[in-house]
Amino acid sequence: MVQKHDAFSVGFDIGGTNIKIAVLTPKRGIHRFWTVSQPRPLPEEVLATIDDALRIAGHKGSGFRSPVRGVGVGCAGLIDANSGSVIESPNLPQWKHVPLADLIHQRTGLPTTVRNDADVFALAEWKLGTARKKTDVVFVTLGTGVGGALLINGHLYHGAGFAGELGHATVKLDGPRCSCGNRGCLESLVGSGAIVRRARRYLAVDGGKRRKSYCPASLTPELISDAARHGEQWAVRTFAETGRILGIALAGLANTLSPELFVIGGGVSRAGTWLFRPARDAMIGAMLGKARAIPRVLPARLGNKAGAVGAALFHLEDE
Amino acid sequence: MVQKHDAFSVGFDIGGTNIKIAVLTPKRGIHRFWTVSQPRPLPEEVLATIDDALRIAGHKGSGFRSPVRGVGVGCAGLIDANSGSVIESPNLPQWKHVPLADLIHQRTGLPTTVRNDADVFALAEWKLGTARKKTDVVFVTLGTGVGGALLINGHLYHGAGFAGELGHATVKLDGPRCSCGNRGCLESLVGSGAIVRRARRYLAVDGGKRRKSYCPASLTPELISDAARHGEQWAVRTFAETGRILGIALAGLANTLSPELFVIGGGVSRAGTWLFRPARDAMIGAMLGKARAIPRVLPARLGNKAGAVGAALFHLEDE
Repeated sequence: MVQKHDAFSVGFDIGGTNIKIAVLTPKRGIHRFWTVSQPRPLPEEVLATIDDALRIAGHKGSGFRSPVRGVGVGCAGLIDANSGSVIESPNLPQWKHVPLADLIHQRTGLPTTVRNDADVFALAEWKLGTARKKTDVVFVTLGTGVGGALLINGHLYHGAGFAGELGHATVKLDGPRCSCGNRGCLESLVGSGAIVRRARRYLAVDGGKRRKSYCPASLTPELISDAARHGEQWAVRTFAETGRILGIALAGLANTLSPELFVIGGGVSRAGTWLFRPARDAMIGAMLGKARAIPRVLPARLGNKAGAVGAALFHLEDE
Repeated sequence: MVQKHDAFSVGFDIGGTNIKIAVLTPKRGIHRFWTVSQPRPLPEEVLATIDDALRIAGHKGSGFRSPVRGVGVGCAGLIDANSGSVIESPNLPQWKHVPLADLIHQRTGLPTTVRNDADVFALAEWKLGTARKKTDVVFVTLGTGVGGALLINGHLYHGAGFAGELGHATVKLDGPRCSCGNRGCLESLVGSGAIVRRARRYLAVDGGKRRKSYCPASLTPELISDAARHGEQWAVRTFAETGRILGIALAGLANTLSPELFVIGGGVSRAGTWLFRPARDAMIGAMLGKARAIPRVLPARLGNKAGAVGAALFHLEDE
């Protein structure tokens, strides 16, 4: 017979092209992790994928003793953390005000938590990754979107609403138009789209010095990272400038919030030292006063597992 | 015989040109408030002024029962809140690492707290002013410098060091040089200096339409406020643009921290509706998503008494 304290927790990370699934042991070990390809799924399709995953984890439906104690879901966009509703999501354009936590609970009988992607990322990195045992941390996710989450006095902080959307603080007044409609947000300067546009400009200028041939139209942050590792100067410069802007934004956050640590994750962060070194240098250069505590700037540790693992963690302990 | 719970608390607000002093009753009433002119005082001079004020409040030195239960001091600059040392202060250029709390305690025998000016402002507005009974508030002080303080879950928040320096978050990448050495900080765009420069530009352009004659060299934020009230368009435009930039910065803070409320104080905030209306409009226009909680933007209530009153409050109750 399975006792509650012996049971697994299952986490889902709903992205734009696939759903990542993690089954965690009671001691927070990763028992299983896998990915299901499901581009822009409808709610029905997500529910079916969750059913399948719970069956794999040994759950037989409500009314039975289950080796699963709870379900966690992380999802980009506006999530009402109290009700577990997806208000809107860039990955799920057809979803509007979907009470996802209620729908999952009705089908499975399991306690269910739905949070935004930055929250589950932060929880994973806090409990199992780079930010272990810290109390005051700013988490930043760099990808198509730029998001974040705040750990304040050892608690994830939401303020009066949806705190943590640091990708939508203006860094360049009257700067480029952002996906949110505002101008000059951090996301408009260091999101994937901005990085690719910057790389195309440097690629055009550095034309003659290139070692390999690159097609401007097919550049992605991953490709630019690879090119930087191969010594392509246009790619190194792309991340140097991206890192500089990121670092200046981190300095503003450091002056405002004074965290112990920044944890930087998301696909773009895989550029590694090409991005982190200029970011750290720019942050230190732009921060106030020498007497202040300079926060560390470190990469996230759990990689593409962070979302699903963090979602599962909601049912292993309180935040 | 005076009981501790009956005793007064005395607060000092050390500015660049004078020291403001408040004596608070145990029930947080303002028993006395006065100002002593003392430009750029040395530590000795501040200590003498504090002695005088305590005598006025009835304190006779250590060893006697005193009607004063504690001393609070607020001061601009870098203050170590734990030790009560003034590390450095723009108002007190000769002070470096002065252990002010210890010095006062040695002379008076009274419990003493020294905090930065934004902290004492925030405490006053939280306990007695605009932010009463709120738990999540961003306080902004607008003057020569632009500072702030954060109320998070009902506690003033300092993070790992000196949180709240929101005047030194970059709003305009590679923008004008700031007093801190960085470029494009909020302070470099909405501090007194920036407002005066902006007003001079608009004054030059609007030249023919002026109703009264204004000397560009003698403009101050107060004068520009007066001119706006008298319908001078160059002055109205100055605060409209200043408010727009402030509002865009508030939107970034709102997206990041999601406070219930912004409380705006400091000398520049006396421009009132000429500043607050464009700030609110720009904030709402630049904030993410319609579903989010839109914070209120309200003026501080205690005016020039906030610093001294807030400093005294530290000894009437826990933060």
